[in-house]
Amino acid sequence: MNNIQITPVPQTLRAALQDKIDQKTKPPGSLGKLEGLALQAGMVQNTLTPVLKQPAIIVFAGDHGIAADGLVNPFPQAVTAQMVYNFLQGGAAINVFCRQHHLQLTVVDAGVNHAFAPHPLLKDRKMGMGTQNFLHMPAMSLDQCRLAMQAGAEEVKLLHANGSNIVGFGEMGIGNTSAAALLMSHFTGIPLADCVGAGTGSNAQQLAQKRAVLQQVIAKHAFPQSPEQALATFGGFEIAMICGAILQAAALQMLVVIDGFIVTSALLVAANMQPAVKDYCIFAHCSEEKGHKAMLQHLGVQPLLQLDMRLGEGTGAAMAIPLIQSAVAFLEEMASFNSAQVSNRTI
Amino acid sequence: MNNIQITPVPQTLRAALQDKIDQKTKPPGSLGKLEGLALQAGMVQNTLTPVLKQPAIIVFAGDHGIAADGLVNPFPQAVTAQMVYNFLQGGAAINVFCRQHHLQLTVVDAGVNHAFAPHPLLKDRKMGMGTQNFLHMPAMSLDQCRLAMQAGAEEVKLLHANGSNIVGFGEMGIGNTSAAALLMSHFTGIPLADCVGAGTGSNAQQLAQKRAVLQQVIAKHAFPQSPEQALATFGGFEIAMICGAILQAAALQMLVVIDGFIVTSALLVAANMQPAVKDYCIFAHCSEEKGHKAMLQHLGVQPLLQLDMRLGEGTGAAMAIPLIQSAVAFLEEMASFNSAQVSNRTI
Repeated sequence: MNNIQITPVPQTLRAALQDKIDQKTKPPGSLGKLEGLALQAGMVQNTLTPVLKQPAIIVFAGDHGIAADGLVNPFPQAVTAQMVYNFLQGGAAINVFCRQHHLQLTVVDAGVNHAFAPHPLLKDRKMGMGTQNFLHMPAMSLDQCRLAMQAGAEEVKLLHANGSNIVGFGEMGIGNTSAAALLMSHFTGIPLADCVGAGTGSNAQQLAQKRAVLQQVIAKHAFPQSPEQALATFGGFEIAMICGAILQAAALQMLVVIDGFIVTSALLVAANMQPAVKDYCIFAHCSEEKGHKAMLQHLGVQPLLQLDMRLGEGTGAAMAIPLIQSAVAFLEEMASFNSAQVSNRTI
Repeated sequence: MNNIQITPVPQTLRAALQDKIDQKTKPPGSLGKLEGLALQAGMVQNTLTPVLKQPAIIVFAGDHGIAADGLVNPFPQAVTAQMVYNFLQGGAAINVFCRQHHLQLTVVDAGVNHAFAPHPLLKDRKMGMGTQNFLHMPAMSLDQCRLAMQAGAEEVKLLHANGSNIVGFGEMGIGNTSAAALLMSHFTGIPLADCVGAGTGSNAQQLAQKRAVLQQVIAKHAFPQSPEQALATFGGFEIAMICGAILQAAALQMLVVIDGFIVTSALLVAANMQPAVKDYCIFAHCSEEKGHKAMLQHLGVQPLLQLDMRLGEGTGAAMAIPLIQSAVAFLEEMASFNSAQVSNRTI
């Protein structure tokens, strides 16, 4: 994935798009963030008439060696596999929101610690029965990390080949806020303690233990010398796949909808490899998970929603896609001052 | 409308609803504001299985005497009527968002300074060719104010009779941020200068003039002795209709979606008359219009969205209704820990 080519978002139509937005029958700027989304969609698609095709969510699920003994996670590791079954049966939050908004949902086994029987709705990209415990060794080898990134990219290629041009990512993996916090600290330079949050709901004592354990992880490993090395050391199979998927989606000039803390940690890796990726991304929401706000600030981006959500699964991305559809719809469908014979400002 | 009876939202099912929410397959609280919405919908409908029926937006349009000479408004008064035509032709932002989310849209002429030919999509509730200029006299008489409130209530009764149980309100009226600022200052006690904002886009000089003119309005009138008197003095036909519509919707135990600065000013009046109304309300967004944030703080409520929008027309309400639908959908459709055989927290 290191040699993947991401074209910077073309700027040629910026002024023409802004003019089209400003000619709509509304006070200038009065659609706020929707105007920025309309501009971004037009620029990414390099057209004055952007269209969103077959919006999709891919949820990558994987287990984490660190989670096996419950040191950092109030829910047991078995919940990862149980939640995958819940996805397949349509009972999770992400299922509900994808049905509501007609989003195509793909569930990928990136490396859950459970042997699933073949299932028509489950994509098998299993890299192993969970990662290694990074308290003792890197979560995965560099080769595994590259293969996982490639697998994520392959899923995006399939979506794109079927006509999708906008994709959001989600994840499931007991323990993955620990991996994301480590990646966050590595890539932002923010002290680890400020990156570690309550995850699925640690109490104060559990949170202190989580911080202490993750501090040991940092101390254990030499500072990784490349983004891939950092991803292999501190990441997870689902995070590596999301990182590869984000890069591939941007390379295909798709709009990329970034969910919460875990998905943004994958973007931190991707943006470190390929800074141009960021301009393809739409930041769905600011999660309640402690570190997410600082991650977004580090990236210099504004989230669309702030609904105090911290569920993962891509639920923030699913809630944001209708806003992006609203943006593209107003650009396409609203009358202009001229076409509707509405007077513009007097001065 | 003074004798309308609003039943306080029944609290009987609060604990059972919260338990149902907490049994869903997600960390407790992790759906954030959506959980509050699910709770509120269940309590307002007094059921563990709330359902949203035929969500609707009513846009009330009216003109304002103060706007005729352009002292407070950068867009000319004629834009109110022009925008009504735009609504009828489907070219405004509210049309786009209602189409996107399958919301029934009703447009009401509350008192636009224009004689519309009959049109199948326009409800004629015209109270006059705009209000009086409150620089010189009250915007309307107390009788007119009561009739306008009643007319707004009638529109809600029609919706409800046709099966709707959730309604959002919007407005169009050049000059109505001035009326809303006066109402805000009256009902919150916040100094007028802090209530007056740029509206559709006043520059610094226009804004200073708007403030000075509205200060004269305040000085002109004795402090109104009742909420109705304040509404008649400082309001507008569309604002009075929205006030009556909000009260009626709450009396019918509908969910009421509050839009931005103007609609919230109507709620300030309604809540002063009937404090129980507030618990039926969902606050769609925090508008960029200067005073709105302080209005919401005065009411002690949290908005759902903050998209930097300041367009009016009910566009904030239209964007928020899908979030309310998401809340009701997760409550209905998500599996419980038990039904999905997912392990709950270990401690």
